[in-house]
Amino acid sequence: MTHTKQHPLDPLTPQEITAVASHVRSAHPDEDAYFRVISLSEPAKVTLQPYLEAEHCGTNGLPPPARLAMVQVFLGPRNSDHFFQLKVDVNSGIIVEKERLTGRHPHVDSNDMTRTERACLDDPAVQAAIKDLQLPEGATIKIEPWTYGTDGLNDMKQKITMCYFYMQLISHPDANHYAYPLDLCVEMSGDARVLKIYYLPQGSSNDISDKATPFDRRKIHDSSIEYHPDLVPQHRTTTKPYHVSQPEGPSFEVQGNHLSWEKWTFRVGFNYREGLTLHDVRYDGRSVFYRLSLSEMFVPYGDPRLPYTRKSAFDAGSDGLGHTANNLQLGCDCLGHIKYFDGWHTTSDGTPIKMPNVVCCHEVDDGILWKHTNYRTTNAVVTRSRILVLQTIVTVSNYEYIFAFQFGQDASLHYEVRATGIVSTVPITIGEKVPYGITVAPGVMAPYHQHLFSLRIDPAIAGPKNSLVIEESHPMPIDDPQIHNPFGVGYTTTSQTVANESGHDLDHNVNRVFKIVNEDIINPVSNVPVGYKLVPHYSQLLVAHPSSFHARRSEFGAHAVWVTRYHDDELYASGHHTMQSLGGEGIASWIKDRQAKAEAGDSGSSNVRNQDIVIWHTFGSTHNPRVEDWPVMPYEKLTVGLKPVNFFTANPAIDVAVSTQEKNRSVLVNGDTKNGVCGDSSCANGT
Amino acid sequence: MTHTKQHPLDPLTPQEITAVASHVRSAHPDEDAYFRVISLSEPAKVTLQPYLEAEHCGTNGLPPPARLAMVQVFLGPRNSDHFFQLKVDVNSGIIVEKERLTGRHPHVDSNDMTRTERACLDDPAVQAAIKDLQLPEGATIKIEPWTYGTDGLNDMKQKITMCYFYMQLISHPDANHYAYPLDLCVEMSGDARVLKIYYLPQGSSNDISDKATPFDRRKIHDSSIEYHPDLVPQHRTTTKPYHVSQPEGPSFEVQGNHLSWEKWTFRVGFNYREGLTLHDVRYDGRSVFYRLSLSEMFVPYGDPRLPYTRKSAFDAGSDGLGHTANNLQLGCDCLGHIKYFDGWHTTSDGTPIKMPNVVCCHEVDDGILWKHTNYRTTNAVVTRSRILVLQTIVTVSNYEYIFAFQFGQDASLHYEVRATGIVSTVPITIGEKVPYGITVAPGVMAPYHQHLFSLRIDPAIAGPKNSLVIEESHPMPIDDPQIHNPFGVGYTTTSQTVANESGHDLDHNVNRVFKIVNEDIINPVSNVPVGYKLVPHYSQLLVAHPSSFHARRSEFGAHAVWVTRYHDDELYASGHHTMQSLGGEGIASWIKDRQAKAEAGDSGSSNVRNQDIVIWHTFGSTHNPRVEDWPVMPYEKLTVGLKPVNFFTANPAIDVAVSTQEKNRSVLVNGDTKNGVCGDSSCANGT
Repeated sequence: MTHTKQHPLDPLTPQEITAVASHVRSAHPDEDAYFRVISLSEPAKVTLQPYLEAEHCGTNGLPPPARLAMVQVFLGPRNSDHFFQLKVDVNSGIIVEKERLTGRHPHVDSNDMTRTERACLDDPAVQAAIKDLQLPEGATIKIEPWTYGTDGLNDMKQKITMCYFYMQLISHPDANHYAYPLDLCVEMSGDARVLKIYYLPQGSSNDISDKATPFDRRKIHDSSIEYHPDLVPQHRTTTKPYHVSQPEGPSFEVQGNHLSWEKWTFRVGFNYREGLTLHDVRYDGRSVFYRLSLSEMFVPYGDPRLPYTRKSAFDAGSDGLGHTANNLQLGCDCLGHIKYFDGWHTTSDGTPIKMPNVVCCHEVDDGILWKHTNYRTTNAVVTRSRILVLQTIVTVSNYEYIFAFQFGQDASLHYEVRATGIVSTVPITIGEKVPYGITVAPGVMAPYHQHLFSLRIDPAIAGPKNSLVIEESHPMPIDDPQIHNPFGVGYTTTSQTVANESGHDLDHNVNRVFKIVNEDIINPVSNVPVGYKLVPHYSQLLVAHPSSFHARRSEFGAHAVWVTRYHDDELYASGHHTMQSLGGEGIASWIKDRQAKAEAGDSGSSNVRNQDIVIWHTFGSTHNPRVEDWPVMPYEKLTVGLKPVNFFTANPAIDVAVSTQEKNRSVLVNGDTKNGVCGDSSCANGT
Repeated sequence: MTHTKQHPLDPLTPQEITAVASHVRSAHPDEDAYFRVISLSEPAKVTLQPYLEAEHCGTNGLPPPARLAMVQVFLGPRNSDHFFQLKVDVNSGIIVEKERLTGRHPHVDSNDMTRTERACLDDPAVQAAIKDLQLPEGATIKIEPWTYGTDGLNDMKQKITMCYFYMQLISHPDANHYAYPLDLCVEMSGDARVLKIYYLPQGSSNDISDKATPFDRRKIHDSSIEYHPDLVPQHRTTTKPYHVSQPEGPSFEVQGNHLSWEKWTFRVGFNYREGLTLHDVRYDGRSVFYRLSLSEMFVPYGDPRLPYTRKSAFDAGSDGLGHTANNLQLGCDCLGHIKYFDGWHTTSDGTPIKMPNVVCCHEVDDGILWKHTNYRTTNAVVTRSRILVLQTIVTVSNYEYIFAFQFGQDASLHYEVRATGIVSTVPITIGEKVPYGITVAPGVMAPYHQHLFSLRIDPAIAGPKNSLVIEESHPMPIDDPQIHNPFGVGYTTTSQTVANESGHDLDHNVNRVFKIVNEDIINPVSNVPVGYKLVPHYSQLLVAHPSSFHARRSEFGAHAVWVTRYHDDELYASGHHTMQSLGGEGIASWIKDRQAKAEAGDSGSSNVRNQDIVIWHTFGSTHNPRVEDWPVMPYEKLTVGLKPVNFFTANPAIDVAVSTQEKNRSVLVNGDTKNGVCGDSSCANGT
């Protein structure tokens, strides 16, 4: 019993990772262990939920649930016949569960990618193909390996990697090779053999050619394709410094992974797959959410030409939002007083590796929170809104996502995604146009694609049993003698409590609102169940045809709001194993299976009214690039809100102290200014 | 010629207001002049547009257009038979236009409101009615006068004011009287006579009673109804100070009403009706918008019971977003280095009155602007986003709106509305429920209502002639042998250029995007017309029945996006005169009239392709209150974006300098913290 100080929700410590690796090796002395994942297996809710309740009541009479690790490991040869998932008791070393994942592949392995790139470049046929491209002097090849987004043309048991070719023309290591997509793509096997060489379609024809198109020298660009500061010819100097100072320090308190701030308390989690997770989220001691996470994301491309039909990435399931998290730098990725959290990953031999600063936590001034001016007295009362941001940033090859949970003093919680980075590019003949992409530089086409996110909301609104209510606003009839609406101005709301597991769509035309309520707890003032509402991000759902592999693999993309019954092992909206998945697993399949059971007599399995439920919000962006997204795109922001709705008996932020100049110390800019310097009278601290 | 230094777009100076009042009085020596408005009449576009072009070219050969004032004034008795609108040449004093506004009423007059309140309270019948209410000892009556939202039951020629009754029970001047809506409402005439006394419906019955319900003592509240800091029993002390310091001053330059910041240039306008307006908006010298303003807003209530059917406010047209603008306080309404702009209004005798600090201008750090990490080199390049905010806040009786234009370094522009303040309340019998409102405190009902905004976008995308394009993303067919889409993943965009003046709706299901383009200017990289796209706020349109006065008066509420041809006198989406308006004027009527003309042969009048056009975005909130909105609601935020789409040849913010700790000086929070004080190691400035 070496790790008794850990909270059941704390990620595994490096000592625990080392111990688990050792346990696994001891249990399999005759097999080579090649580790892919050693991560906390969160305790079952049935044990953790009472433990957390007892902890909050201060009784703490319950023993902590056992520390368990989830391990993904090759035991023996590195192929899908020898790929296993284990559940290991961290302290006793007992292997509690062992599953052979035949036909499955673990998430992206950077060792593998490097090996594949090297083997690809060394292959004589590939070398001949490169020669055929007749690249300019000094060109360096950069290979961009992509996971194989299933199209059904290959055996799924074999891992496939698609190697796209780019080049750099200048020697700077951060020169933008995405400006030089080459007419070459190589399909590589999991054991790093060349399977097929593709010459890419160039515009008018949909077909892959059987010979290379020599590089067109008109596609050589100037510095406008670069983003690295060494290579951008001129930077603007007009942006004056802007500092945030917090003379009394931050308003949050941190104890290990436990955070408290402005009546909020919660625990920070981090794992290789979802990255940042939040647990046991409470406001003023009242339970709100059991767990919040980005469950999955899917990036399907809309280019119908082979091999681009295989461009579809599960950035959580196949790349890992924790695995790809950035090391956040002080003063660069956030401003003010910053607390960082580290993550721990593991090497293939089971050695823990630190991922420093994968989550940052800081406060932001958010403008005005509430204001009222009494026009009779002209007295204004105004409060400023402070928010607490928990941010993590991932790089998935060319592209970046900035994910942030934002806590509000008014008990609202927002989830913000900023999409940035470099759009994926493919070659196009100069002068050609395609209807599923746009030219961002001569010979460089950025294809249409989507980013679809699944935010998993495991609510615990005033307790574990909740319901989903769909509310709409409709005009009152004007021709019904039973209804009093003589002037045609009346409107009311309709409410439907969802009975069974199901998917639903947004409709702003009727102000459709999704409320998560606790039917057992009635608000004493408004006399309705306490709840939180989802403020959705309106976006197009998956465009690909329902029969496509894109659609079959990303079931969550078919509806904007899903409700399911809680199950410990349903964390991932597209299923446990997305790498080269074939579909038929994920949120719609779970629902379908349980509906079938319900129809067969097991009536309870599909009911979601006053049950432990999970809400999944699908949102995203249909990203048809614009030239302004090149060479690195300014952020596109997507925001989802969760706001109390009759959860409290009044505005929970009414006690936020009034905003004053004494506290905030702004500076008055008097008169005209030139270059930030005050003109006809000087800048002065106002009163 | 006393004011030659004014730019044609500068609001009238106090000297100009005085001069105009004097001109009007001189021209009407025999009539009592009671002024309501003396405001800049902006120059006709046909003269101003070439003047601005010349100004930007540095040629400045054109003489400035004449300074004109728009005057609304009663000449003689203060009734609608003597209400006039004049256009006056500021310098010559010549009255260029004079229109008698028979049947019209000017925007809310606070003198009038005060007189009406007093007359109402002094009326013996009203006094008797108050007595019947049997109010508690120490109660003070507060009257809340409302404009008469037309229901057709009164003669429109007579101005009507609805006086709603509230009380205060404690003596503090800012005690929240909205917590005590009384069972009384008095209809008052424009000349301050009592026309009718209403006892209000109390819940189950829809009808107005003919006798008062005595005040129910169970409706006496504790301090939870209060918001003023003197009256809120306890404030949280956990929020630590947060200062913004800009050691080199702000990044903007101000010259009078001309602002330049981070490649943006524009002029700030302000008038009694729209409040803040922006003019001649350019980025890097390139024309983007001619004029931006909140054209109108409408707040209809959904309570079908008389007299609430009359609760519908045009906060721009009838109250005036400039007229009701707050005096913004340093360090309270914004943070950092703040530049304020004053407004000028006029008293009824034509004396200019200063409205200090009605607009504030400051910079905000907006998080990350763009980032890319090269995973090969692990080099991260990250820039922070700075935005420039122009903010104005209005108080319309109980309610507040915070309006802000936000300029981005990436040439994006956002318009943000925050709704806050106190929800309008009416009495309800304890224990009763109504389907068109919610109880926020015992006996206090907050009715359902909507806030509908019309943002007027007068574009000048690379020149004055623009078109509106509607783009949608649709899957490619899978069963058309002519179309290559073998895997069902392909999708393309359809584009429709709007031919005639019309209204359109949002549809996120097909990713419907509204682009304002200049068909004559083709982007050299992407080979498509340059443009800006509207990033709309998704919201329900007007719920009231199309036959209702609500709908007839707020024509803009019927569609989310309208396009019209530019006309100098079409600034207001519900017409010039909204006070007690009857409908049949506004955006749909203009379109209908011109379509009729077009059908009669004047084919050019309705065509909007490659013309000088105006785009109007209707957005808002169906506000079915929650208890958390009481006693003052935390902001509800609505955001509209305008973003370049193939307007530039690359990301216009690629030259923003990289974010560094040296520049940003963040502070590292090490280890655990308690009460903001660092724990196991001290807070240190990072490297």
